[in-house]
Formats: sequence, C-alpha cells, structure tokens
Amino acid sequence: MRGNIFLIGIGPGNKDYLTGEAKKTLEKVDIIIGYKLYIELIEEFIQDTRLVKGQMTKELERVNLAIDHALEGKDVALISSGDTGVYGMAGPLLAELDKRELKTEEKPAVRVIPGVTALLAAAAKLGAPLMNDFAVISLSDLLVPWEEIEKRIKSIAKTDFVIGVYNPSSKRRKENFARFREILLKERDGATPVGLVWNAGREKERVLKTTLEDLPEEKVDMLTTVIVGNSKSYISDKGDFITPRGYQQ
Amino acid sequence: MRGNIFLIGIGPGNKDYLTGEAKKTLEKVDIIIGYKLYIELIEEFIQDTRLVKGQMTKELERVNLAIDHALEGKDVALISSGDTGVYGMAGPLLAELDKRELKTEEKPAVRVIPGVTALLAAAAKLGAPLMNDFAVISLSDLLVPWEEIEKRIKSIAKTDFVIGVYNPSSKRRKENFARFREILLKERDGATPVGLVWNAGREKERVLKTTLEDLPEEKVDMLTTVIVGNSKSYISDKGDFITPRGYQQ
Repeated sequence: MRGNIFLIGIGPGNKDYLTGEAKKTLEKVDIIIGYKLYIELIEEFIQDTRLVKGQMTKELERVNLAIDHALEGKDVALISSGDTGVYGMAGPLLAELDKRELKTEEKPAVRVIPGVTALLAAAAKLGAPLMNDFAVISLSDLLVPWEEIEKRIKSIAKTDFVIGVYNPSSKRRKENFARFREILLKERDGATPVGLVWNAGREKERVLKTTLEDLPEEKVDMLTTVIVGNSKSYISDKGDFITPRGYQQ
Repeated sequence: MRGNIFLIGIGPGNKDYLTGEAKKTLEKVDIIIGYKLYIELIEEFIQDTRLVKGQMTKELERVNLAIDHALEGKDVALISSGDTGVYGMAGPLLAELDKRELKTEEKPAVRVIPGVTALLAAAAKLGAPLMNDFAVISLSDLLVPWEEIEKRIKSIAKTDFVIGVYNPSSKRRKENFARFREILLKERDGATPVGLVWNAGREKERVLKTTLEDLPEEKVDMLTTVIVGNSKSYISDKGDFITPRGYQQ
C-alpha cells in the first residue's frame, strides 16, 4: 500500500499564515520533511518525533527521502516556505517522481496544498503594490543563465509590469541586484516606488519604502522580497505603497 | 475613537484556504463587508448578523461603507476572494482613504492580511507550473487599455515567462482571450502546455490540461484561471503540468 505525499507551503513567516488545509494535513501525516529553518517554524504546534530536518542545499535529497517513505506506505508532508509552487519543492518532487521507474499504480498519490507566497505577504506589509499586472522574477543565476534573466528584466520594465523579486542577492552574487536596478533606471523614473521587506511575518521583520533612485543595494539579502512599482504607483500621505487598479482615475 | 479596517483575502474557494490570521480576524471584528458570493462562502462559520453583502460592481460603495463604519468606531473586515492585494480590494480602500479629508490621527488603522490568490490554487491543482519566473496579467480592458495589455502579452511571451491569466473572458469581451492565444502562438510552440482551472476549491471545480494549439477559447469565462507554460514546461506521464526549476537538468 503506497502512502501519500503532501506538498505544503507553510507561508513565509509565523504559523498565522498557515491555511486550514495545510494545518489539518500537517497534524495527520506520519512524517514531515523540510529544511531545518522551516521545520523550526512549525515546531510549536507539531510533535517533534515526526519531524525530519534537512539541509539548505539538499533539495533533491529531501525529495527522494519523501518518495522513499511514501513507497514504504507512510503519509509524508514535504514542506516549503511560502507557497510550494513558487520557487518551492512542488516541481522537484513531481519531476523526480516522474523519473522513477514505477508503474502508474505504484506511484504515491501527490497532493499540492497552496500557501501564501512571500511576495503576497510582503505586498500586504507595504500596502497594495500588486494591484495591476505584475511579474515575478528570481535574480539567482544558479539555475537560469544571467543573460536570460536580464532579457526578462528589460521586457517587463519596458511594458510597465509591477515587479516582484525573489533572491535579490546572496553572498556570492551581490552584483545581480545592482545590475537589476541599473536596467530598471534606464526604463523607469528614478522616483518609482520600491518596497523592501525582510523576514515578512517573522520576528526580525523589517519594512522599507524607498525609490528606484535611492534603493540601498547593499542591504538586500536572500531573505529580502523586493517590489518595484509601475509608472502609476505612488506612496500615499499615510505612507502606503499603492498601485492603482485603474477605475478610480 | 476610530475603528480598524482589516483587508482580508479569504482564498479562492472553500474555507480550508483561509489562513489562521484571516480566520481569527473574521471571528473578532464587528462588521464583515464583501461581495455577496464571497460572504456566502464564509457564512458557514461566521454568525450572520455581522455580514453585509454588497453587489458585484459596487467596489467603491463597499470601500466607503467600510471607511464610514470604521470612522464610527467599528472594527471592519473588507473581504476579497483570493488575495486582497491581487486585483482585490486593498488598493481601492487605501486610495479612497487617502482621498478623504482627514487628519492623519483621525484615519482608521488599516491592516492588510494576505491570502492564497486564485493563481496559486490553480497551480496546485495542475501540478507545478509556476516553478520558474512568471507574469500575472488580467485580460479585462475595463481598467487598462487593450493596446497596453497586448504590449504586455507580447513582451512576456517573447522572454519565456510562465503566464498566469485572470479575467480571461466575460460575456462582453469574448475576443480578448482569442487574441491572447493568437499573440502567444506567434512566439511560442503550439505544444506549450496550458492549464485551465474553473472554480478552484469550490464545488464545481474543473481542471483541464491542454496545449496552446488546442486551447478551447469558447469555454473560458470570468471564473477561469489560465496558466501557460514556458518553453521548458511539460506534462508528465502521470499527468502533472511541470515547469522545471532548472537544477535537475
């Protein structure tokens, strides 16, 4: 008897971001596998014995551990921060499962449970910056060539998308974010609002509203979510970052 | 004494998509205002007397009703389906509040509570289609000129974004979705996977996986979320719509 695999996004911060479905599922499975930091976030309401902490860079190891447990008949939850479908574990798990030499009836049933991705939590902290068409881009060139990323930045900058940025910077690639800003400044006004949120919903949460011109590139790290407004975005008197939907104009 | 306004996204479907924060807030406020259909979705766990049902097209009426109640000292929740910050009520509320002739200290405190937007729920039903950079676009030209929308579609089609579509069609604008498909077919392979989800998480949920070539434009309506893959997306043997993150290749 095969077990089930549940791909779960736990939200970006504390347990208040969990959906009812995610919480109910976490309470009933046999094993919960995730990167150490995320497991620690849910430890306050889940009993310890079912938790398996993995290492940061070992995504495929966690994926295959989840599949192996399910093949032994266990119900397994594989955890991502935010939403499992947005730069999370859903893709790697489904792709690895597809590669295994198993008959269809032998494969574990998989259920993807959506969550609040970091971009939505960051937007909520800033006001309402995503209210028109937006694009989501990762500046990590570990998996996508930088030339490709640069082409994408140019195209969305030119056509006035609000832009949500994941992985703006890491220790190894400080220059990507500076280059991102440089490309945008060629297409957009320096006064375009930019919002930065560090650790949305976590203890060390920090929110900064600035402009493209004044963007402090050196303070951005892997845990920062960045949102760049479109040509109609503004900061209100009350300090909210607002992108108009249109009908009030 | 001013009340508080909570902008709440209740998720796209049933109450299982609610976050803990959204649920707790709905339980404690004095008044809950929302479009009739969304209020009905939460009626099963909220007492009736606090619920105010609004009409579909009267967004600004609901927004101002919420502000008025808060000015009278009530705690108000203003409801959107999905996430309040993605084509929802957060922008209109904050913008209207900004326009009112109130001193800063008179303005009600506003808190935006994020939720699972329809795109993430649809992605979860399809597999893992959003695993690389993606763009979100509404095909409704009520608020944005069609020429602008068309420019945006072309730019993201050329630079290989996965594309999430809101408001693909309505009774009044059947042709927009046909035109969207036509533009994409000029830039992308006809075999590119496309997923359609109707009523994600609701009773009448329906999921269809097809290709750009075979896309059945006539079946798409206002309640459909459409996801178009990038050049690397595929449908697995098991039937999952997968966009590779990259590192498995």
